Amino acid sequence: MAAIKPSVPKGTRDFSPVEMTRRNYIFETIKSVFRKYGYQQIETPSMENLSTLTGKYGDEGDKLIFKILNSGDFLSKADSAALDARNSNQLTSSISEKALRYDLTVPFARYVVMHQNEITFPFKRFQVQPVWRADRPQKGRYREFYQCDADVVGSDSLLNEAEFILIYDEALSTLGLKDFTIKINNRKILSGIAEIIGKPELIVDMTVAIDKLDKIGMDGVVNELLSKGFTQEDVDKLEPIILLEGSNYEKLNKLRYILSASTIGLKGCEELETIFEYVNRCKLQRATVDLDITLARGLNYYTGAIFEVKTNETFMGSIGGGGRYDDLTGMFGLKGLTGAGISFGADRIYDVLQELNLFPDSVAQTTRVLICCFDKAGEEYALPLLQQLRAENINTELYPAGTKIKKQFDYANNKGVPYVIVIGSDEIESGLLTFKYMESGTQEKLTINQVLTKVK
Amino acid sequence: MAAIKPSVPKGTRDFSPVEMTRRNYIFETIKSVFRKYGYQQIETPSMENLSTLTGKYGDEGDKLIFKILNSGDFLSKADSAALDARNSNQLTSSISEKALRYDLTVPFARYVVMHQNEITFPFKRFQVQPVWRADRPQKGRYREFYQCDADVVGSDSLLNEAEFILIYDEALSTLGLKDFTIKINNRKILSGIAEIIGKPELIVDMTVAIDKLDKIGMDGVVNELLSKGFTQEDVDKLEPIILLEGSNYEKLNKLRYILSASTIGLKGCEELETIFEYVNRCKLQRATVDLDITLARGLNYYTGAIFEVKTNETFMGSIGGGGRYDDLTGMFGLKGLTGAGISFGADRIYDVLQELNLFPDSVAQTTRVLICCFDKAGEEYALPLLQQLRAENINTELYPAGTKIKKQFDYANNKGVPYVIVIGSDEIESGLLTFKYMESGTQEKLTINQVLTKVK
Repeated sequence: MAAIKPSVPKGTRDFSPVEMTRRNYIFETIKSVFRKYGYQQIETPSMENLSTLTGKYGDEGDKLIFKILNSGDFLSKADSAALDARNSNQLTSSISEKALRYDLTVPFARYVVMHQNEITFPFKRFQVQPVWRADRPQKGRYREFYQCDADVVGSDSLLNEAEFILIYDEALSTLGLKDFTIKINNRKILSGIAEIIGKPELIVDMTVAIDKLDKIGMDGVVNELLSKGFTQEDVDKLEPIILLEGSNYEKLNKLRYILSASTIGLKGCEELETIFEYVNRCKLQRATVDLDITLARGLNYYTGAIFEVKTNETFMGSIGGGGRYDDLTGMFGLKGLTGAGISFGADRIYDVLQELNLFPDSVAQTTRVLICCFDKAGEEYALPLLQQLRAENINTELYPAGTKIKKQFDYANNKGVPYVIVIGSDEIESGLLTFKYMESGTQEKLTINQVLTKVK
Repeated sequence: MAAIKPSVPKGTRDFSPVEMTRRNYIFETIKSVFRKYGYQQIETPSMENLSTLTGKYGDEGDKLIFKILNSGDFLSKADSAALDARNSNQLTSSISEKALRYDLTVPFARYVVMHQNEITFPFKRFQVQPVWRADRPQKGRYREFYQCDADVVGSDSLLNEAEFILIYDEALSTLGLKDFTIKINNRKILSGIAEIIGKPELIVDMTVAIDKLDKIGMDGVVNELLSKGFTQEDVDKLEPIILLEGSNYEKLNKLRYILSASTIGLKGCEELETIFEYVNRCKLQRATVDLDITLARGLNYYTGAIFEVKTNETFMGSIGGGGRYDDLTGMFGLKGLTGAGISFGADRIYDVLQELNLFPDSVAQTTRVLICCFDKAGEEYALPLLQQLRAENINTELYPAGTKIKKQFDYANNKGVPYVIVIGSDEIESGLLTFKYMESGTQEKLTINQVLTKVK
């Protein structure tokens, strides 16, 4: 067989040992915070029925779903007319019944509906699994990537929103971030603003425009608003709202004044105030909470508070986000289940920690001690020592004999092993092991018990 | 939109919180043993190029690979002749470039070849990821399941085989198994046996037959051998070998006598003896090691020692297996890399632990303390306490106020929460919290510091 030069599909990645230890460090930190807050892990299958996913992500989303070809003689059940017309779109559903998960939210909704009789509500679940999207790959955008979500369903208490702020604060502070902002807004406030301007039907255009303030500045926003059907009078009303300044409470007070004629707008202010009250009873570690009226997120989805998290230490898009939605499971026939959720952007957090040099050195250390020897006698002497070290939960390897000692040291260095024990005939005779510190290159003679004390 | 009654594709599963804690317990135990022995984790993409996988698993295997339909107008590049002839098989490669991972071995081989210049050999890697097979689903056989593999490449030392025995022993003992057997054989011994009988060309038929000894008994094996082209004389020679008894060393001595005319057979004996010597220098916890001449496994793949693990506490197929192979990466053009690997059957281990009631109770406990209150004042009083408990790494939840206390207790019981704190107006006034032990139903009044001491 001719050798194939192997590659991975574009947009996908191998994770090598050092990357894995770092990714695990991020995921384990986030998961342990989720658990500390009472969230429980679930997993759903990588493949869902195509009908479960279709129509949930809009037309553009549907195109990005990876479909799985039916097994066996799939053409025998294929739509003949579509085949003859070479119509890929029309053919798909007759040759593909299953598809890869596009996000974790729709599978979670499907899960809740299927398992509703076993679940005790409020149900606080977290889920950390890969998702797949047939997007055009580019820097920072992959066709396979992990999502890292926590959601609560069956509770309308704003305590949940407050706890999400605490979760972001604790997880990101634990990961070593020193300055980050949790932006918060409320979809009801955005509705209220559109209402008092008298253009409720233009709410999507309005929020899409003001969401760009950071990127295109106030002039850009004004131009976009005018081009979308807002009048100069509308813009004059909007501008002071968009440019609202002060503390969160000052902003809230001004908003309440501006929105005094909008019931829904005032409701949004009240919700945010309650969330702030909860959070003020707690001590945040490193997070700043900032009411940001320009924050929009996927409007058709969220109905209450919305969040987005940004680090202030380096330039990077959002590293997390979420919000409240009124109806998660209606698409599968279970109405009236309200919920709220957040998500961490693991790939971006990885890049931030990398750039700020925040991965602890210990994270990359997998093996702590390497035992090197010269021959079979050395190996046999080493084996009980190896077991002693491992019994103390010290990750230890014995390098198979027959390789030059220099190469064994190289192995230790390449693998980031900090300590090496060398066993030759002297060591076997005296019981004193040569113990080498790989970073400094110094060494000393130690008994196995002294080694255990050093390494622990 | 009409509500769809949702389901998952057949052969796939949701994992609910209790199942997840148990699965995590198994995976974390095995992973931490892999790490202790110097194995490092990697992950590869769920999808590989179809050409990477095709032809590696035999014709039957190829049919079981899940193919991913190309995105967009896939028919525009489809094989027209195959379309017109409605030939599914012929069409596939023109409408599908990617496929889901079928096992972890071929992706690992692909990984080693692609990353050969960054890897320090011997390379000890482990990998725990799902694989997908379009098999007919049945009890215990799924279309999506996790594999849990450790392999070392670039070392021909038999120390690696000995360490696999130690890994099985430590991982399964740690999981609470008290009586299990690691069966070991050597492909070279099987070749030697076929050689001395004078039927080397029938080695596959021979091993397939004797592999069934447990199931069909000696008579069945004899009938099968005779039907496959072995003579009565051959069978007379084989029978005492198959029925070999005694300690591992006694069996080895007899085999050496029987195989004295076969160089390859003697080499197999020598390899096993070296492995036993290594293992004898170590203390095994619960495992029995048993030289089993009827153990065959995938013959076309392995070239040296082979393993299979069975629990003796309940009836269950193999819960692990592996062996040495001479050429992992040749299929991708990198020759001469020898390796050895083992695998744990996580789903079966789950069933065994379940049946033997070996999951520790603590595994299912996610939240340790639930704080219950009656109103907003209770919530506000509770929040700093909640933070105090969490600061001590105690998983704690605050149930949102406004729900009857009975329902809050039900929530704690359903979630397996052992302790509940109740905060009403008395508790707020006195600072003495009502602390309830959910299992016994008893309660007492405690300060927050006393609670912390109790729970830690």
